[in-house]
Amino acid sequence: MSEINQEQLTPTQRSQIKRVPQRGNYEREVIYQILDEGLICHVGFAVDSQPYVIPTAYGRVADQLYIHGSPASRMLRSLQTGIEVCLTVTLLDGLVLARSAFHHSMNYRSVVIFGTATIVKDAEEKLEALRAFTEHVIPKRWTEVRPPNHQELQGTLVLSLPLTEASAKVRTGPPLDDEADYTLPVWAGVVPLKLVAGEAIADARVPSTINTPIEVKNYTRLNSKVLK
Amino acid sequence: MSEINQEQLTPTQRSQIKRVPQRGNYEREVIYQILDEGLICHVGFAVDSQPYVIPTAYGRVADQLYIHGSPASRMLRSLQTGIEVCLTVTLLDGLVLARSAFHHSMNYRSVVIFGTATIVKDAEEKLEALRAFTEHVIPKRWTEVRPPNHQELQGTLVLSLPLTEASAKVRTGPPLDDEADYTLPVWAGVVPLKLVAGEAIADARVPSTINTPIEVKNYTRLNSKVLK
Repeated sequence: MSEINQEQLTPTQRSQIKRVPQRGNYEREVIYQILDEGLICHVGFAVDSQPYVIPTAYGRVADQLYIHGSPASRMLRSLQTGIEVCLTVTLLDGLVLARSAFHHSMNYRSVVIFGTATIVKDAEEKLEALRAFTEHVIPKRWTEVRPPNHQELQGTLVLSLPLTEASAKVRTGPPLDDEADYTLPVWAGVVPLKLVAGEAIADARVPSTINTPIEVKNYTRLNSKVLK
Repeated sequence: MSEINQEQLTPTQRSQIKRVPQRGNYEREVIYQILDEGLICHVGFAVDSQPYVIPTAYGRVADQLYIHGSPASRMLRSLQTGIEVCLTVTLLDGLVLARSAFHHSMNYRSVVIFGTATIVKDAEEKLEALRAFTEHVIPKRWTEVRPPNHQELQGTLVLSLPLTEASAKVRTGPPLDDEADYTLPVWAGVVPLKLVAGEAIADARVPSTINTPIEVKNYTRLNSKVLK
């Protein structure tokens, strides 16, 4: 049976949520949804016990997560040696303001992926991954722009990380105060937060005959389903 | 001379920006501004070569960055042993849509801090750090809510990380296309992105006699200065 047919990932020693385990979620659909809404991930790796955490773009195709960059990048040079990687995507959904300082929190959805990355050598898979990066940022873009030429393909390293050992962590809802604190004369609640697009700024050299694409004009991050 | 008086941090082997070095910035003011606008950081550490990247809240007081949590958390238990930590804060400012797939990018401001964390044992500094966490999220909140009691203080571990070895990386502005691509009939430009607060949702048990504080009602992340 292919991994992709598993609805739920099996938690491992490192992927299992230990702090506030009721926020943990191993459903593939939940994990994919968070990954598909996020725009950047934080890639963690260690070289001689020295950790690095680098923000970068990513794309997903089925049960593979792709990152890319210059073959000269320290991150990609390190990861392609097959060292362990931890890749985290976090979406901040709100500030949780409690009646006590102690119970302040945030509403968020995060995914942590563990594994080792592999260089994508197959030309077709590489192009598919590059398409995924572009389409992940904005739909339909790939067919509108100039595709990568031979030199650009040679100058781009693509790594894939399988979505086999991963977990999501989700907090939603109001503050949870100590029972005694509910009588305090303090406002409490949630300030929802969302990444919102402003009006698109055309490049100075775009001729006036070219219209702003509808996907750019009405840009929004998918955030349709609210996770409970 | 105290570290805090240095206007510019000295890049080290690990904090120096190597990829696209012109985006690197070591000015304390730039670094602080990014840290003060961000709400969550990604903390990276390695245990037996296994990297972990954990999203968490933080606060800053002068040249110290504080993180906190339960003494039972794997992250805090690991970090307090004095292992190397890499802490990254990333603000996403826009999508950079170029005429070629290859030159797509993002506008962002990020800070990467290297060092080792220390447990804050001094009661006064610990309380000051907790105040900073709360005020970092929303100003004036600390004076409105119930302060931490003895048990809560005992149950919170606060770690400090000095802001001595850090760098910022900033990308702004339009896409940079290959000269030949400027004649392509493709829209190009920037979609600005911003973390925006929605209407505050009062907790169900807040009595109607308690008004929503103005800081909650008009919540906004400081984003006044645009970095060039």
